[in-house]
Amino acid sequence: MSTSPPSYYQRHVFFCLNERASGEDCCAQHGAQKAFDRCKAKVKAAGLAGPGQVRVNKAGCLDRCAAGPVAVVYPEAVWYSYVDEDDIDEIVESHLKHGKVVERLLTPPHLGR
Amino acid sequence: MSTSPPSYYQRHVFFCLNERASGEDCCAQHGAQKAFDRCKAKVKAAGLAGPGQVRVNKAGCLDRCAAGPVAVVYPEAVWYSYVDEDDIDEIVESHLKHGKVVERLLTPPHLGR
Repeated sequence: MSTSPPSYYQRHVFFCLNERASGEDCCAQHGAQKAFDRCKAKVKAAGLAGPGQVRVNKAGCLDRCAAGPVAVVYPEAVWYSYVDEDDIDEIVESHLKHGKVVERLLTPPHLGR
Repeated sequence: MSTSPPSYYQRHVFFCLNERASGEDCCAQHGAQKAFDRCKAKVKAAGLAGPGQVRVNKAGCLDRCAAGPVAVVYPEAVWYSYVDEDDIDEIVESHLKHGKVVERLLTPPHLGR
């Protein structure tokens, strides 16, 4: 029904890398940059990077600090709360490579700022 | 079919604010920050901001520099190439408020980096 083109990226991942100036708790204090770097490198190494495939992006505050560190995968709108690099590897292998959502890492729906 | 929750934001807008260190052409050189600020302010003023509604976000390089400055609206995956603040106002009023894509501002599908 829409005349808009198909999704330029099959999956577009945004990592919250926000650092709160006030010193308040934020994704940047919980390894967000490292996780972003890991995800980007893994996606590239798997040959998944690029138009029609996967893009891993930096983002400002996604405003779900209470669930952080978080990342969101669009257009599916799947949110993840990850802890370590193993979690990132699983997201890449399961979701970004095979389209299978990693249920155990889903952000609880009620958690926002 | 998926067990993932519904989209936390009805519409999640990402503005490329990337500034290339080398001085190469980039969204930041074409008013991206001003456009982001405008969009965020307009969305807030319209009472559209928040969970279940609209989130306007900063993003790193979206890798479609040839079409910049760009912004993308998820989960629809609608990409815009805007020029000025009037364009931003139209995106807010038409798309973010009423769900009607602004056809004239759509990023040409073939334009990437």
